[in-house]
Amino acid sequence: MEETFVPFRGIKNDLKGRLLCYKQDWSSGLRAGIRILAPTTYIFFASAIPVISFGEQLERSTDGKITAVQTLVSTALCGVIHSIVGGQPLLILGVAEPTVLMYTFLFNFAKDRKELGQELFLAWTGWVCVWTALLLFMLAILGACSIINRFTRVAGELFGLLIAMLFMQQAIRGLVEEFGIPQRENPNQAAFLPSWRFGNGMFALVLSFGLLLTALSSRKARSWRYGTGWLRGFVADYGVPFMVLVWTAVSYIPVHDVPKGIPRRLFSPNPWSTGAYSNWTVIKEMLDVPPLYIVGAFVPATMIAVLYYFDHSVASQLAQQDEFNLKKPSSYHYDLLLLGFLVILCGLIGIPPANGVIPQSPMHTKSLATLKHQLLRNKLVSTARRSIQKNANLGQLYNSMQQAYDSMQTPLAYQTPPGLELKELSDSTIQKASSTGYIDAPVDDTIFDVDQDIDALLPVQVKEQRLSNLLQASMVGCCVAAMPILKRIPTSVLWGYFAFMAIESLPGNQFWERILLLFTAPSRRYKVLEEHHATFIETVPFRTIVFFTLFQTAYLLACFGVTWIPIAGALFPLLIMLLVPVRQYFLPKFFKGAHLQDLDAAEYEEAPAVTYNMAFDQDRPPDQVDSEEILDEIVTRSRGEIRHACSPRITSSTIHSPKLFKRAFSPRVNERRNESNTMLSGTGTEIKQTPSPGPSILGP
Amino acid sequence: MEETFVPFRGIKNDLKGRLLCYKQDWSSGLRAGIRILAPTTYIFFASAIPVISFGEQLERSTDGKITAVQTLVSTALCGVIHSIVGGQPLLILGVAEPTVLMYTFLFNFAKDRKELGQELFLAWTGWVCVWTALLLFMLAILGACSIINRFTRVAGELFGLLIAMLFMQQAIRGLVEEFGIPQRENPNQAAFLPSWRFGNGMFALVLSFGLLLTALSSRKARSWRYGTGWLRGFVADYGVPFMVLVWTAVSYIPVHDVPKGIPRRLFSPNPWSTGAYSNWTVIKEMLDVPPLYIVGAFVPATMIAVLYYFDHSVASQLAQQDEFNLKKPSSYHYDLLLLGFLVILCGLIGIPPANGVIPQSPMHTKSLATLKHQLLRNKLVSTARRSIQKNANLGQLYNSMQQAYDSMQTPLAYQTPPGLELKELSDSTIQKASSTGYIDAPVDDTIFDVDQDIDALLPVQVKEQRLSNLLQASMVGCCVAAMPILKRIPTSVLWGYFAFMAIESLPGNQFWERILLLFTAPSRRYKVLEEHHATFIETVPFRTIVFFTLFQTAYLLACFGVTWIPIAGALFPLLIMLLVPVRQYFLPKFFKGAHLQDLDAAEYEEAPAVTYNMAFDQDRPPDQVDSEEILDEIVTRSRGEIRHACSPRITSSTIHSPKLFKRAFSPRVNERRNESNTMLSGTGTEIKQTPSPGPSILGP
Repeated sequence: MEETFVPFRGIKNDLKGRLLCYKQDWSSGLRAGIRILAPTTYIFFASAIPVISFGEQLERSTDGKITAVQTLVSTALCGVIHSIVGGQPLLILGVAEPTVLMYTFLFNFAKDRKELGQELFLAWTGWVCVWTALLLFMLAILGACSIINRFTRVAGELFGLLIAMLFMQQAIRGLVEEFGIPQRENPNQAAFLPSWRFGNGMFALVLSFGLLLTALSSRKARSWRYGTGWLRGFVADYGVPFMVLVWTAVSYIPVHDVPKGIPRRLFSPNPWSTGAYSNWTVIKEMLDVPPLYIVGAFVPATMIAVLYYFDHSVASQLAQQDEFNLKKPSSYHYDLLLLGFLVILCGLIGIPPANGVIPQSPMHTKSLATLKHQLLRNKLVSTARRSIQKNANLGQLYNSMQQAYDSMQTPLAYQTPPGLELKELSDSTIQKASSTGYIDAPVDDTIFDVDQDIDALLPVQVKEQRLSNLLQASMVGCCVAAMPILKRIPTSVLWGYFAFMAIESLPGNQFWERILLLFTAPSRRYKVLEEHHATFIETVPFRTIVFFTLFQTAYLLACFGVTWIPIAGALFPLLIMLLVPVRQYFLPKFFKGAHLQDLDAAEYEEAPAVTYNMAFDQDRPPDQVDSEEILDEIVTRSRGEIRHACSPRITSSTIHSPKLFKRAFSPRVNERRNESNTMLSGTGTEIKQTPSPGPSILGP
Repeated sequence: MEETFVPFRGIKNDLKGRLLCYKQDWSSGLRAGIRILAPTTYIFFASAIPVISFGEQLERSTDGKITAVQTLVSTALCGVIHSIVGGQPLLILGVAEPTVLMYTFLFNFAKDRKELGQELFLAWTGWVCVWTALLLFMLAILGACSIINRFTRVAGELFGLLIAMLFMQQAIRGLVEEFGIPQRENPNQAAFLPSWRFGNGMFALVLSFGLLLTALSSRKARSWRYGTGWLRGFVADYGVPFMVLVWTAVSYIPVHDVPKGIPRRLFSPNPWSTGAYSNWTVIKEMLDVPPLYIVGAFVPATMIAVLYYFDHSVASQLAQQDEFNLKKPSSYHYDLLLLGFLVILCGLIGIPPANGVIPQSPMHTKSLATLKHQLLRNKLVSTARRSIQKNANLGQLYNSMQQAYDSMQTPLAYQTPPGLELKELSDSTIQKASSTGYIDAPVDDTIFDVDQDIDALLPVQVKEQRLSNLLQASMVGCCVAAMPILKRIPTSVLWGYFAFMAIESLPGNQFWERILLLFTAPSRRYKVLEEHHATFIETVPFRTIVFFTLFQTAYLLACFGVTWIPIAGALFPLLIMLLVPVRQYFLPKFFKGAHLQDLDAAEYEEAPAVTYNMAFDQDRPPDQVDSEEILDEIVTRSRGEIRHACSPRITSSTIHSPKLFKRAFSPRVNERRNESNTMLSGTGTEIKQTPSPGPSILGP
C-alpha cells in the first residue's frame, strides 16, 4: 500500500475493491454448506466467552453500570453490522480487554467527580465516544492506515503478548477470587461458609486446569495416533467448545450435600429483568453533562482513538497476512471509518464499543483456511475417482482435477484468471507412473492414491466470505437471550479458557520464541534450527538477539505496568503507538540495519528446517501424513501466521527412489520450481530430472 | 541356564558364583562415592511409598492388626538381610500388593472362624508362613528356578500389567475415599463436615494430579530444551522424590480457616505408642491355634508359595536382563532359599513377608546403569582432557582412554579380561582428523569434542554392588522412626504416586504396546515402524496380533476379576502360574510357532527404527545429543528392558560429510562392525571406507 494522505482516496479505493467481490462474499459462503459451522462455532466460542467474562469484570468495576448483556449486545451489533457493510469480513469485532481497561479508568475518574458521579458516567462516555468517532473519521479520511506497513513485528507482537498477559492475569486473578466471597452477594448463604469457599476454590482449580489441558491437547488431535480420522478431525475442529461443555457437565457431578453456588457460575442479569434497560436511553442524559466535561472528554477520546486505530488495524493486518494467500483486497481505511460510526452508535446507547480483536481475527482466517482445504479436497477426490473409473491416464486425470479446481475459484472482475495454483503432481507419482512403463496407461491406486496424493496438490487458500462472521455475530446476539443457559457455565471454566487463549496465542510470536531462546541451554540451541525457524536465527549474532529481546521485554513490562496505575493507566495505548517511531528512529542507533530487518521483518520470512547437517528435508514420511495435519502445522501459528516455506511434502516426495536421490532439492529451490508449472508431458518429466542447484552438501 | 533338577546343585552353583564377587560387591559400591545417593533415593522412594500405603490399606482391611509400621519393618528387615547375604543384590524386596491381597483374604477367612478370630489371626498366618517357607525350601532345593526361561514374556508382561492395574485401582479408590469420611475416625470433627469433605476431595484431586503430571514430566527432564545441563540432570535423577516434597509443601499452603485434617495425611501409629508391639510376640500364641487350622494353613501356603516363587523369580529376571550387560552371575535358587528363611522369620514375629518386587527391581538396575555411565564418563573426560593438554594425537588419546576405562573394570576371577568394550572412535572424528591432514597431529576440540564424543564410546554398563540396596533398605527402616515426619505426606500425594508407578511401568511392556496398536488408526500404524519396535510388528500378520492380544487381555481381566472375589480370590497366583503351561501346550494349537516366538520372545529382540522409506537412520543430529538422554531412551523401558539395537549415534555420525555418504550403514551392520574392534591405524580407516552391504535403497 502506498503511503498517500490525499483525503478520501484510501476509503474510495477500499470501497471500490470490496464492492467488486461483495456478491461473491455471500454466494461463496452459502455454497460452503453445513461445513461453515466448524469455523463459525470455533470463533463464536472464542468471541463470546471472553466477552461474557469481560462483561462480568466490567460489572464489578463499574458497580453494575455495564454488564455482560451490554458487552454481548455491543459485540453482536457491531459484528453483524461489520459483517454486512464492513470492508474486510475476516475481521472479528468484539469488546476487548483494552476497552475494558479504558472503561474502568473512565468509571474511576467519573465516580469521584461531583458533577458526574455514577449517574452521568454512561452519558459522559457517550461524549467520549463521540469525540473518539470524530478522531477516527479524521484518521480514516486522511489515510492514516496507509502507514500500516510501519506497524512492524516489534509493535504487533508486543501488543499480542500484552493481550496474552492480560488474558493470563485475568485467569489467575479469577482463580484466586474463587477462594474468596464474591462481592455483592449475601455472605450468609451456605455456599459462602469458609469451608465451602475452600471447596469451591479447589473445585475451580480442577475445572480450569482440566479445561486448559484438555483444550490444549484437543487442538493437536489431528496428529494423534489413536482413533479414526473422522474422530480426530472432529476433535480438532470442535474440541475446544466441546471441552467447555464437558467441563460444564463435570461441574454438575457433585450434587450430594453440595449447596447451590458451588462451583460459582456466570453471573449476569437476564436482559428482561428490570433495571437492565437503564443504559439504552443514555442519549437523553448526554446534555446533562457539564460543558467542561464534554470538552474534557476529548482527552480520553484521543487515547481510545489511538488504541482503536492501532488495535483495529493490527487485528486486520494479522487476519490477512500475505501467507494466507488471500484473493480479495484489504480495506483498512473504510473499516476504520465504519468503526467510527459503530463507536458513536455504541456511545449513544450506553454500551462499550467493539473493535477488531486479537487473537480471534487471525484465528478466524486460520479456521477458514482449514475449511477451504476440506472443500477443495472433497471436490478433487470425487473428480479423481470419477476419472479413474473412466480409465483416464495421468494427464487426463490431472486436467480434470485442474478443471474441478478452477470451478471452485470464482473469477473476480479485477483479478488475473485463476487456475495456475493447483500444484504439480509430485515426482513420486510421475516416477511411479513411468516405472510401470506406460505414462499413458490408465491410472490406478498404486500410481495415484486419491486419498493421499491430492493433499499434495492443494495450495493454502482461505474461504473468504461474510457468512461465518455474520453467523458468529448473530450467535453472540443469541447469547443475550440464552443468558439462563450461559449461566450454567462455571466461572472457573472461563478462567481455564482465558489461560487457553493466552497460551494459544504464543506460538508463532517471534518475540515469545526469542524469549524462549534465551532460556534454551546453549547445547540445545541446534534444536531450533531443526524446526522451521525465523531467518534471524541464522543471520543475527546471539548477543544482538539477547539485547533486542531484553529491550522488548522491558518495554512490554512497562506497558503492562502502566495498565496497573489507577487513572494515568489510560495512557497505555500511547506507549504502544510510541513503538512505531521508536522502531524507526531510536532502535537503528543501537542495532545494525540488517539485523533489525531480520529481527523485525514486516513480512514473515522464514528459513526452512534444516535437519541439522542434512540439507534436504526428509525427516518425515511423505505420503502418509494427513495433509490437514500439515496444514495445522503450517497454519497453527495462532496469531494466524503461515510460514513462508513450501510444504515439506513436495521436497520429500522426491526422495522416494534411489535413482531420484540426486534430485533432492532444497525446499527453496522447489518453491521456485513450482512457479514454472510445466506439467506432465514427457519433457516435463525430463526437465525435472536435470540436476538443479541443490544444497552444496550433496555435491555434484 | 540348563534345566536340571538335581537337588542342591542350583543353590551350590549360585553360591559359588556370587561368593567370587562378594568382596567386589562392596568395594565397588563404596568407590562410587556420593553419587550412589541418586539411585538409592530414587529406589528408596519407589520402595517406601507403596509400602507405607499398603500398610495403611492393610490396617483398614485387618482392623489394625497390621499397620504401616509392620510393613515397613518387614521391608527393611528383609531388604537389609537380602542385601548382605542375598545372592542377586539388584533385586529389591518389599511388601507387595499381592501379599496385601493374600493377607486380606487370610484375615477375612480367619475373623469369621470361631476357633481363630481376630486374636489368633497373626498366629495362624505364622503357620501359613512356616508352610510357605517349607514349600519354598523344597522348590529351591529341587532346582525349580531352572525353568525360569519358560517364564516367557506372555507371563511376565501379564503379571506386570496386573500389578499396574492393582496400583491404578488403589490410586482411584484412594482418591474416591478422600471425599468420604475415613473409617475409625471421630465423625464429629470439623474436618468431617460434608463441606470440608468436599474441599478435601477436591484438594486431593489437585495434589494427586499435580504430583502425577509433574513427576511424569520430570522423568523426561534430560531432553528438556530449557535450563542448564546440571539442572536437567538433577531433575531427572531426583525429580520424583523432589515432587513428593514439593506437593507435600503445597498441601500446607491453605492454612487460613482450614481445619486440621485437611488434606488428609498418612495415618499410622508411632512405633513407640502402646499396642504397636502386640505382633512381635506372636510366636507364643502359635501353639494356641487348633491343629486342624495348623494343617489347613497348608492350603493358602501353597498359593503364597506359588506367588512368591513366580514373583521373586520374575522380578529377579527383569532386574538382570541380557540387555543390561551384567557382569556378575544370577542367583535364582539361592535367593529363593533365602526367601524361605525370610518368610519364616516374618511369620514368627507377626509381620507380612517381603519378596522381590516389580517394577522397583528393574528400576533399580536401570538407575544403576545411569550411575555407571556417569562415573565412566567423568573418568574418561578427565583422562581425555589431560591427554589433549599433553598434545597427544588421536591414537594416544584413545589408548589413554582405553586404559582409564580398563582401570574402572575390576577383573573378576572367573571372567574374561575386560577391555574390549570401549567402542571405537566414530567415523566422524576420524574423518575430521584426516581432513585436517595429519592423523598424527595433536588432537584439539574441533576434532574430538571431549564433552560430546566420549558419550559415543561408552557401552551400557551397570554398577553392580550391594551398597545401594543396603542403604535403601536401611532408609526404609529409618522411616519407622521417622513416622512423625512421614505423617506429613498427604494421602492424596500417595495416590498420585501410585498412578505414576502404574504409568511408568507401561512403556516397554509389549503387551501394553500391542493393546495400543489395536487402537491405532490404520493410517497411522507406520508411525510405530518409525520408532524402535519389536520384531513381531514386521513379521506377524495384524490379524494374529489382534487375536493374541485379545486372548491375553481376556486372561488379564480374568486374573484381575479373581482378585475381587472375597476368599477364593486367593487363588489368583494359580491363574498366573497356569499361563506357563497354557503358553507351552495350549497356545501353539491356535498360533503358528514362528508367530508365537516373535510375539513372545523370551529375550527381548527388537528391530531398529526405519525412517519409513529411508533405510538409514539419520533423523537425529549425531553429536549434539546428550548421551544420557539416549541412555534414558534406551534404558527407560520402565520394566528395565534395554533394547537390542545399537545406539543410533554411531550410524548417523557416518553421514557427516558427503563423501562418507555411501558408507551409511544400517544399524545392524554397524553393530557387527563394532565387534571387530580395529582401531585408528591408517588401514583401519580404509577398512571403514570400503562399501559395506548397506540397505538396498541406497543402491550401488
